[in-house]
Amino acid sequence: MAATEPVETEMRLSPTGRVEAFSDGVMAIAITLLVLDLKVPPLDAVSPGGLVDALLARWASYVAYLAAFLTIGIIWLNHRTLVDRIARFDARLHWLNLMLLLGVATLPWPTALVAEYVQRGGADASAATALYGLIATLMALPWGFIWRHLADRPELLEPGYDAAYARAEWRRGFIGMPIYAIATVVALVLPLVALALYLGIALLYAVTSQGVAVAPAGATGGAS
Amino acid sequence: MAATEPVETEMRLSPTGRVEAFSDGVMAIAITLLVLDLKVPPLDAVSPGGLVDALLARWASYVAYLAAFLTIGIIWLNHRTLVDRIARFDARLHWLNLMLLLGVATLPWPTALVAEYVQRGGADASAATALYGLIATLMALPWGFIWRHLADRPELLEPGYDAAYARAEWRRGFIGMPIYAIATVVALVLPLVALALYLGIALLYAVTSQGVAVAPAGATGGAS
Amino acid sequence: MAATEPVETEMRLSPTGRVEAFSDGVMAIAITLLVLDLKVPPLDAVSPGGLVDALLARWASYVAYLAAFLTIGIIWLNHRTLVDRIARFDARLHWLNLMLLLGVATLPWPTALVAEYVQRGGADASAATALYGLIATLMALPWGFIWRHLADRPELLEPGYDAAYARAEWRRGFIGMPIYAIATVVALVLPLVALALYLGIALLYAVTSQGVAVAPAGATGGAS
Amino acid sequence: MAATEPVETEMRLSPTGRVEAFSDGVMAIAITLLVLDLKVPPLDAVSPGGLVDALLARWASYVAYLAAFLTIGIIWLNHRTLVDRIARFDARLHWLNLMLLLGVATLPWPTALVAEYVQRGGADASAATALYGLIATLMALPWGFIWRHLADRPELLEPGYDAAYARAEWRRGFIGMPIYAIATVVALVLPLVALALYLGIALLYAVTSQGVAVAPAGATGGAS
Repeated sequence: MAATEPVETEMRLSPTGRVEAFSDGVMAIAITLLVLDLKVPPLDAVSPGGLVDALLARWASYVAYLAAFLTIGIIWLNHRTLVDRIARFDARLHWLNLMLLLGVATLPWPTALVAEYVQRGGADASAATALYGLIATLMALPWGFIWRHLADRPELLEPGYDAAYARAEWRRGFIGMPIYAIATVVALVLPLVALALYLGIALLYAVTSQGVAVAPAGATGGAS
Repeated sequence: MAATEPVETEMRLSPTGRVEAFSDGVMAIAITLLVLDLKVPPLDAVSPGGLVDALLARWASYVAYLAAFLTIGIIWLNHRTLVDRIARFDARLHWLNLMLLLGVATLPWPTALVAEYVQRGGADASAATALYGLIATLMALPWGFIWRHLADRPELLEPGYDAAYARAEWRRGFIGMPIYAIATVVALVLPLVALALYLGIALLYAVTSQGVAVAPAGATGGAS
Repeated sequence: MAATEPVETEMRLSPTGRVEAFSDGVMAIAITLLVLDLKVPPLDAVSPGGLVDALLARWASYVAYLAAFLTIGIIWLNHRTLVDRIARFDARLHWLNLMLLLGVATLPWPTALVAEYVQRGGADASAATALYGLIATLMALPWGFIWRHLADRPELLEPGYDAAYARAEWRRGFIGMPIYAIATVVALVLPLVALALYLGIALLYAVTSQGVAVAPAGATGGAS
Repeated sequence: MAATEPVETEMRLSPTGRVEAFSDGVMAIAITLLVLDLKVPPLDAVSPGGLVDALLARWASYVAYLAAFLTIGIIWLNHRTLVDRIARFDARLHWLNLMLLLGVATLPWPTALVAEYVQRGGADASAATALYGLIATLMALPWGFIWRHLADRPELLEPGYDAAYARAEWRRGFIGMPIYAIATVVALVLPLVALALYLGIALLYAVTSQGVAVAPAGATGGAS
C-alpha cells in the first residue's frame, strides 16, 4: 500500500469529509469573490489617459482586498486544523459551523464598503471600517462556541484530544475578539488606522501561525 | 487502520461521491452568492455622512439574506442526510437531484427581489415576497418525488433502509409545502409578515433539526 | 468492510479524482452563475406597482435560464459517465477537457445576451440566439476529440472498454453538432423558434438520457 | 481490490487532499468568474440592429478572456503536478500556496481592465496590459519559493523526489518571470502586441506542456 503502488478504491466521503467539502467550497468562493470589489473604473468615468490616476485613487480597496483575503485564508487554515481534531459532527456542531461560514460568506460585503467609502473620509469612512471590524469581531463567536461544545462532549473529538484540550482552545479562540473589538472602536475615530490594523492583524496571524496555530504542539506528529 | 496510522490510498470518488461533490458545489456557491444581494450603495447616491442611514434603510435585505442563508444551509444538511441513505443513483434520481439544485441555485434571485422591493411596500413588496414563497414552495417538490422513487425502488437505498422508511420520509418531505404555500398567500396581503415568516420557518427548522432531521432515529448509530 | 462498518483511511485524490473535482467545480459554478442573468429590475426603472409587469416582460430570460441550466446539467451527467470510463488522463486529454470546460464556463455569456436581446426582436434577437447556438455547436467538438483520442489510445480506458467502444462513442458524440447547427441557422430567421429549440433539445436529452447516456448498456453492471 | 470490485470505505481527505480541494475550488471559481468580463452590452447603449457591431467592437475582451482562461488552466495543471510531488504541507508551504492562489484569484481583475481599456488605445491601453503583465510576472514568485523551500526540506517531498529535483524545478519555475516581465515592458509601448504575447505564451505553454510539465520524465511511471 505504498504511495507508489496506488490501490484504487471507490469510496464515499465520510460525514466529516462532506463538511470539509462544503466548508472549503464556501471559503474558496468567498475568498475569490473578493476580487469583484477591486472594480474596473467604467470607461465613461475615466478621461483618456486617466486610468492610472483612477486606479491609484482606489488604493484603499487594494488594502481592504489584501486584509480580507489573508483573513479568510487564515480562517481556512484554522478550520482545517479544527476539523482534523473532530471525529464526527453532531447537529449543534453543524449549526455552529454554518454560523462560522455565515461570517466568512458575509465578509466580502463590508470589504466592498471599505473599498468604496474609505477614500471619502469622515463619518462614512468610519461607518464602513467599523462595520468590517464588527463583523470580524462577531466571526470569533462560533469558534469559541464550537470549542465549548467540544469541551462538553469530548467524545466527538479524535483520539488523543480531550476536554482539557478543547477548553484550552476555547480560551485561545476568544483572543481574536478583543483585538478586533478595539480596532472597531478605533475605526470610529481613525478609519485609516483601523484599516491598517486589519491588514496588520492578518499579517501577524500569518507570521505567528507558522509555528503555532497551524501545527500545534506535536499533536498529530507533524502530519499536517 | 486506526486514524493515527493513516493509510494513504489513491482512489476515485464513487458515483455517489461525485453527486455529493457537484451538489455541495452548487449549494456552496448559491449560499455564497447571496452576499451580492447585500449591495454597496453607490458612492454618488449617498450624500456625505449618509452611509449609516443608507445602510439602515436596507434592513429588509439583511432579513432576506439571513432567511435565504439559513434555508440553503438547512437544505444542505438535509441533502447530506438524504445522500447518506442512498447507495446509488439511477437516471431518475439524478434528474430529481438536478431539479432540487435548480431550486437552490434560483433562490438568490427572489432573495434579491425581496431585498430591493420590500421597502417600497404595496403591490411590489407583495409580488417580491410572494415570488420568494412560491419558489420555496416548489423547492419541496423534488424532495417528495425523490423519496417516492426510493419507495418504489428500495434497492437503491443503503442497507438498513427499506420502502416503508422511504414512504415515511416522503410524507415528511411534503410538510414544508403547505407552510410555504400559506406564507406565499400571506405575502400577497402582508409582505412584511411573510418576510418574518420566512426567517421564522428557517430558524424553527434550525432548532428542531437539532434532534430530528439531521440525526434521525438512531439509523446509523449516531455516526452523523 | 461493509458500509455499516466504516474504515477511516486518509487518502489523496487520484489524478482522475482531481480532474473530477476541478471539472465539477467549474460546472457547478457556471450552472449557479446563470442566476445572475435573471436580473432584478432596478428600483428606479420600475414605477410603483409595476414590478409584476417588469418581471413578466423578461419571460425570455427565464426560458434561456432553464435551457442553459438543463444543458449544463446534462453535460455534467455525461462528463461523469465519460470520466468513469477513463482510467487515467494524459496531457492531451487534460487539454481537451479544459476546452470542454471553456465551453461550459462561457455559456452564461450567450445566455445573458439571449435574456437581454430576445425581447427586442429583429437582427439583435437573431444575433443573440445564433451566438448561443454557435457556442453550443462548438461545445460538441471536445467531446468528439476526446473519444477519438481514446480510440487511438485505448490503454487510457478502464478495463472493459476498448477502441471499438470509443469509436462508437466518438460517432455518438457528434450527433449534437448538426442539431445545434440547424438551430443556429433557424435563429437567424426565427429567434423565438430557436430559443424554443434550445429548451426542447435539453428536455429531449433529459428524457432520452434516462435509459441511454447515463446508464449505458450494462457496462458497469448498473453501478452508476 | 480491482477497479471492477469497488470497496466502499468511509474516509476523510488527507491534509494534502484538503489543500487540493481548496486550491481547486479557488482556481475553478477564478477561471469561471472570467466570463463576467465578457459583458452584455446594456440594452439602452445599443441602437436597434447594432448588437453585432457592439459585440465585434469588444474583440479585445475575447482575446483577454482566452489568454486568462488558458493561463489559469495551465496553472491548475502545474499545481496538480506540484501537489503530486508533495507528501505533506508545513505552515510555510500553506502560506506560499495561499500567495499562489492570491495571484490566481486576482487575475480576473487585470483581465477585466484589459477587456475594457485596450480598445481605447494610448496610455490607458498600456496601463491595463502592463498591469496584467505585472501580475502575471509576480505570480511566478510563489512557485519559485515553494520549490526553494522543498529543496531545503526534501523530507516534505514524496518518495522518489529529492533536493536536487526540487532545485531543478526551482530554476525551471523562474523561466516564466523574464518572459512576462518583457511582455510587461512591451505593453508600455505596444499594448496590442503585449496582448498577443499573453495569448501566445499561454498557447505555447499548452503545446509544450503536452510532453514536459504535465508528465515529466517518467517520475510516476506515467500514472498522471
